[in-house]
Amino acid sequence: MTNQKRFNVAVVGATGAVGGQIVKLLEQRQFPINTLKLLSSARSAGTKIPFNGQEFTVEEAKPESFEGVDIALFSAGGDVSKALAAAAVERGTVCIDNTNAFRMDPNTPLVVPEVNIEKVKEHQGIIANPNCSTIQMVAALKPLYDRYGISKVIVSTYQAVSGAGSRAIDELLRQTKAALEGTDVNPDILPVGSLPVKHQIAFNAIPQIDKFQDNGFTLEEMKMIRETKKIMNDEDIQVTATCVRIPVVYGHSESLYVELKEDFQMDEVRQLLANAPGLTLVDDPESQQYPLAADSAGKPDVFVGRLRRDLYEPRALNMWVVSDNLMKGAAWNAVQIAEYIASERQ
Amino acid sequence: MTNQKRFNVAVVGATGAVGGQIVKLLEQRQFPINTLKLLSSARSAGTKIPFNGQEFTVEEAKPESFEGVDIALFSAGGDVSKALAAAAVERGTVCIDNTNAFRMDPNTPLVVPEVNIEKVKEHQGIIANPNCSTIQMVAALKPLYDRYGISKVIVSTYQAVSGAGSRAIDELLRQTKAALEGTDVNPDILPVGSLPVKHQIAFNAIPQIDKFQDNGFTLEEMKMIRETKKIMNDEDIQVTATCVRIPVVYGHSESLYVELKEDFQMDEVRQLLANAPGLTLVDDPESQQYPLAADSAGKPDVFVGRLRRDLYEPRALNMWVVSDNLMKGAAWNAVQIAEYIASERQ
Repeated sequence: MTNQKRFNVAVVGATGAVGGQIVKLLEQRQFPINTLKLLSSARSAGTKIPFNGQEFTVEEAKPESFEGVDIALFSAGGDVSKALAAAAVERGTVCIDNTNAFRMDPNTPLVVPEVNIEKVKEHQGIIANPNCSTIQMVAALKPLYDRYGISKVIVSTYQAVSGAGSRAIDELLRQTKAALEGTDVNPDILPVGSLPVKHQIAFNAIPQIDKFQDNGFTLEEMKMIRETKKIMNDEDIQVTATCVRIPVVYGHSESLYVELKEDFQMDEVRQLLANAPGLTLVDDPESQQYPLAADSAGKPDVFVGRLRRDLYEPRALNMWVVSDNLMKGAAWNAVQIAEYIASERQ
Repeated sequence: MTNQKRFNVAVVGATGAVGGQIVKLLEQRQFPINTLKLLSSARSAGTKIPFNGQEFTVEEAKPESFEGVDIALFSAGGDVSKALAAAAVERGTVCIDNTNAFRMDPNTPLVVPEVNIEKVKEHQGIIANPNCSTIQMVAALKPLYDRYGISKVIVSTYQAVSGAGSRAIDELLRQTKAALEGTDVNPDILPVGSLPVKHQIAFNAIPQIDKFQDNGFTLEEMKMIRETKKIMNDEDIQVTATCVRIPVVYGHSESLYVELKEDFQMDEVRQLLANAPGLTLVDDPESQQYPLAADSAGKPDVFVGRLRRDLYEPRALNMWVVSDNLMKGAAWNAVQIAEYIASERQ
C-alpha cells in the first residue's frame, strides 16, 4: 500500500454529532488522507479536534475552503449543503452529503453500499447519504428483496435522540436528571428545533420527527417511504412508516412487517440475513437474544432479529432491526462511500 | 343516593402498582363500599394504606378472606388468582381478575366496558380484565369496527415499565441514575422477572415482554392477538403485534395500521373517535398536538391521534394510541366493571 493514492479530504460539520463520528472513522479506517480540513459554521470555528495524533483547528466553511479538496463529507444540515455543495463541485470536489438537501434530486445517487454501491459511478459531483432510519431498514431488506421481492413494508420506529444532533442528546440527559430530581424538565429542542411547540422526551415517546406534511405523515416518515423506493430502484414497493422519538441516546430500533412476493422458508430467511454483508443476525428467543439499541452503540453493523412468520399472511414476516444511527445510519455509510470512491481512483 | 346498596369489597394485591391505583380509584369514585379488605401476599401483610381518611392494614390473602365479600378485585399475579379465585367464587364473591389466569377461559367474560360491557352478565363468578396493551387498542378500534368493520391490525407497542410492576419502575429509575453517573446499570428484573437473562432498560428498547412462544411471538404479543378476537367477538380479525418495553414509567403508546372493510372518510373517522366514550382525540399536526405517554399519566382516557389515511391501501389508516397502562389498562377498567356490577344490583 506504499503507492496508495492519498486524498485531500474535508469534513463539513466536524463539530457535530455525525461529523465527530466521521472524523473518528477516517482515523480508525486509516483512510488514505493527504490533507484533512475540518470545517464548521463560524460559531464553532476554532474548536480543536484530535486526528492521528495531531490537533486540527476547525475552520469556518466557505466556498474557497474546497479549493484542492478531492472528497468532502457534509453533515452540517441541509442549508449548509445547499449553500456550499455547488461551490465544492465547481472546484472538482466529490461531495458525500449526509443531509436531506439532494437525496431526492434525480441527478444525485442515493447510496447504501450494501444495496446500490454501483450508483456512485453515476454521480455528478454529489452523492447523497440516505436518512438514518432508511439506511438500516433497506440494508436489512436487501437480501430478502433480491431473493423473494418485496411488495409491502409497514414500519414503526424507535429512534434515538442523537439523530436530532448533539443538543438533543444534551436535552435528554438534562431532562432525565431533572425528572429524577422532580424538577421541571423545560423542553427546549425536541421534537423539532425550528418549530414552536416543544415536548418532553425524558420518560416519554414523541410520535413526531421532523415537520408534518399535508398528508398527515411527517417528513421523516416520507423520507423512509420515498428514499426506500429510490435506493431499491422500485417505485412499486409500498412503505408505510410511523416515526417515533424515544429516550435512547444512540441506536435506532425498527419494528418491521414485510410482505414478500414469493413463498419463503424461515431457515432460508435466517441464512440470507446471517450471510449478508453489513448485517448481524441476533435471533435466539430461547436465550433471550435479539438486537438492542444499547448493544449497537458504536458498532458499524445493522442488527436483525425477532424473525417470525406472520400468523395470517404466509408470505409476510416480522422483524426487529437495530443500528447505531450515527454509525451505519450516518457516518459509517458516508465513510463507506468515500472508501469506495478512493478505491475506484487507485 | 341515601338508600344506595353498599358492598363488601376486597382488593387482592393492594400493595402493588395496579392494586394501589384500584384503592385510589375506589376512593375517588366514591364506590359504594360497606366494608373494605386490603389483601396481599404474606410478605406485604401489615402494610398500612389510607382510604377515605382511615388507615387500613393489609392482611394476607387466604381462602377465608373472601367470607362475606361481594366483589373482589385481583391484581396480585396469575398464580394468586389461580390459587384463590375459586375459593372466593365458592363463597359467592364476584371476582374481577386483572391477571392472565382466566382471560382465555371460555366461561370467563373478557371485558372492556366501552366494547362489550353486556358480557359481564354471563359471568360464572369471574370476569377477566384484559391485558393493558389490548384494552387501549380495542377501545380505540371499537368505533371504527362498529361503523366499517376491521379486517387487519398491525401494531407495534411502546410500553411503560410500570406494566411489569413496582419493582420494574424502581429498576428503570435506579438504572437511569446509574447510567447518568456512568456507573454499572446491573439489570435485575426486566425483561421478564422469572427468566434468567436480564437486559438494560435505561436508554434502551427491549423487544420482549413476557415469555417467547413456539411461533416466535411473545406471550404479550399473543395476548393482544387472542384477546382482541375474544373481546371483539370476531375470530376473523387479524392482529399482528410486536411488543416493546421502552424507558417510560407510565403510559403505553401504540402505533397502529388498521385495514377497514369499507371505504371511509377521514372526517367521519375523526368524528367517530371524538364522540366515542372513553376516547379523547388529540390530533392537530399543525399545532404539534398528538397523544403523549407523559400527558396520559393518571388519566382514565384512551388518547388517539396521528390519524392519517394509508398512502397505498385506501381502506387503511394509521393511528397512535396512548393510555395510562395502570389506569384504563388495568385499575380503571377493573373499577368500571365493578361499578357496572354495583349499578346492576341496586
